[in-house]
Amino acid sequence: MSINTQLDYFRQKINQAIKAIPPQDKNPLFYEPINYINTLTGKQIRPLLTIITGLAAGGNIDHLIFPATAVELLHNFTLVHDDIMDNDDLRRGKPTVHVKWDLGTAILAGDGLLGLAYRKLLGTPGIDDLRMAKLFTEAMLEICEGQALDKSFENIGQVTRGDYLMMIRKKTAMLISLSCQLGGITAHTGEPVVQALADFGMNLGLGFQIQDDLLDIYADESKLGKRVGSDLAMHKKTIVNVLLLEKSGFPINIFSISDLKKLLKEKDVIDEIRLMIDDYFSQAKRALSILPANEFTTLLAALTDDIKDREK
Amino acid sequence: MSINTQLDYFRQKINQAIKAIPPQDKNPLFYEPINYINTLTGKQIRPLLTIITGLAAGGNIDHLIFPATAVELLHNFTLVHDDIMDNDDLRRGKPTVHVKWDLGTAILAGDGLLGLAYRKLLGTPGIDDLRMAKLFTEAMLEICEGQALDKSFENIGQVTRGDYLMMIRKKTAMLISLSCQLGGITAHTGEPVVQALADFGMNLGLGFQIQDDLLDIYADESKLGKRVGSDLAMHKKTIVNVLLLEKSGFPINIFSISDLKKLLKEKDVIDEIRLMIDDYFSQAKRALSILPANEFTTLLAALTDDIKDREK
Repeated sequence: MSINTQLDYFRQKINQAIKAIPPQDKNPLFYEPINYINTLTGKQIRPLLTIITGLAAGGNIDHLIFPATAVELLHNFTLVHDDIMDNDDLRRGKPTVHVKWDLGTAILAGDGLLGLAYRKLLGTPGIDDLRMAKLFTEAMLEICEGQALDKSFENIGQVTRGDYLMMIRKKTAMLISLSCQLGGITAHTGEPVVQALADFGMNLGLGFQIQDDLLDIYADESKLGKRVGSDLAMHKKTIVNVLLLEKSGFPINIFSISDLKKLLKEKDVIDEIRLMIDDYFSQAKRALSILPANEFTTLLAALTDDIKDREK
Repeated sequence: MSINTQLDYFRQKINQAIKAIPPQDKNPLFYEPINYINTLTGKQIRPLLTIITGLAAGGNIDHLIFPATAVELLHNFTLVHDDIMDNDDLRRGKPTVHVKWDLGTAILAGDGLLGLAYRKLLGTPGIDDLRMAKLFTEAMLEICEGQALDKSFENIGQVTRGDYLMMIRKKTAMLISLSCQLGGITAHTGEPVVQALADFGMNLGLGFQIQDDLLDIYADESKLGKRVGSDLAMHKKTIVNVLLLEKSGFPINIFSISDLKKLLKEKDVIDEIRLMIDDYFSQAKRALSILPANEFTTLLAALTDDIKDREK
């Protein structure tokens, strides 16, 4: 079976689980926007990681689908609330929830997604202690702290590489690390493997976010599903302007994407960013060496390469 | 010791626990608004109920303070997000979070409060199974559904008594019921007592909300901490306009609080509402009969009377 066939099979499982979530309820005002964002399917990297790390560690897909769904719902919660804060009007190529409905509906949809995420997580078969719920909660708080940092950086001219890395560690990498850890725990694997999976996810998440920052500038808009340059337009700090500041010694106002691209070439910023990405992805793959050699460990490595080579 | 001395002692415990929550963090953008709403101390009915039901059922205050803090944080989460949705500018006599800071900060503060609530709940000593977390999650989802119903009622002329009661059950009474249930579970008491506490809290919560609707019209604004008539101004459905509709057979547009008060007198609406309140409070007290007779059960009955006679 090709990698894509395998991934598609798991994506189908995830979609089925997510579609089954909202109860037959008389309250469409609450569940419609939740369904909307849940079925605007994204890359599903986080639930795929939960499932494949868990299978690699000897777990059962019928159990793994619970935390997998939970991390996707947690991710969707952050998307709906972040889109309000960032005033984004497009998500996955469609109108954001607060644009399609209204502010109050979007706040409530986000809250509901978080509640539904906990419900799924707490329903994981074979898990009856609090460990997963505690990790999930700590990750959720880190994500909020990361989003607060990201927002605060919008009003700061000089953000260092260290500040930036702390922010993306909290805002993005923590959830990807959690997704992998939950796979290992649901598989009842040993502590060294769970830690290796957390480490794998953290490095993968850092590489993923840095790459995302590049895609904000270099991606094809039709593939990206949101506007190119939207991070820069919001005065977000990305690896691009953080490294540009480091190389220049002072903040540079950038008025267009093409000006920026010229400047990045001049200062050799892109090459350095690509080295950082390579490094995080290599570290991620090294962490996997502790896993048993099986078809899912192979698939995990292939998925890691897929993520590295993505265009959106 | 007088009732008030006892309640004040517990309130101090709650305040201490809540003040200790935010870590020494470099991220004031995230924790300042959370502290702000947490220290705008309200009536603290929910954490008091967790502590006193738990003590009445034989629990330990050092354990009970965890779920007590969790329900107060969950309540504060709903306040911060609801105030945005309802466009309220005052809460507990002070500017709401989205007014004092901004929209994004308030959304994030609410999210953070929910995460902190889970952290506290999951840290309850002596509890290592998932029951409390599951009940907490289901209550949180019901609260969101209740808020969605409340919002949807703003655009509906005719809301029946049944619709209204379902809405307040979800939006208000469920959390009060949860607060009491968590007290019983933390005390490791038997199932019949836990169920009686849930039933007590549900009836208390229904009576509490109906009374709150009356206070929106009849309270002294300086005691209420928010504008008199603010529910009506937002086209909220309260017991007052629901019963007025029932008696009149058609919706009545009301232009001032004094006109409304005249109409309520004419139609004998207030007497009927007071009977409903009496009935819910009596049912609540009857549920307590299963509890052991001790000083905390006495205090719980006294607190129930206090809530019934409150002016804000």
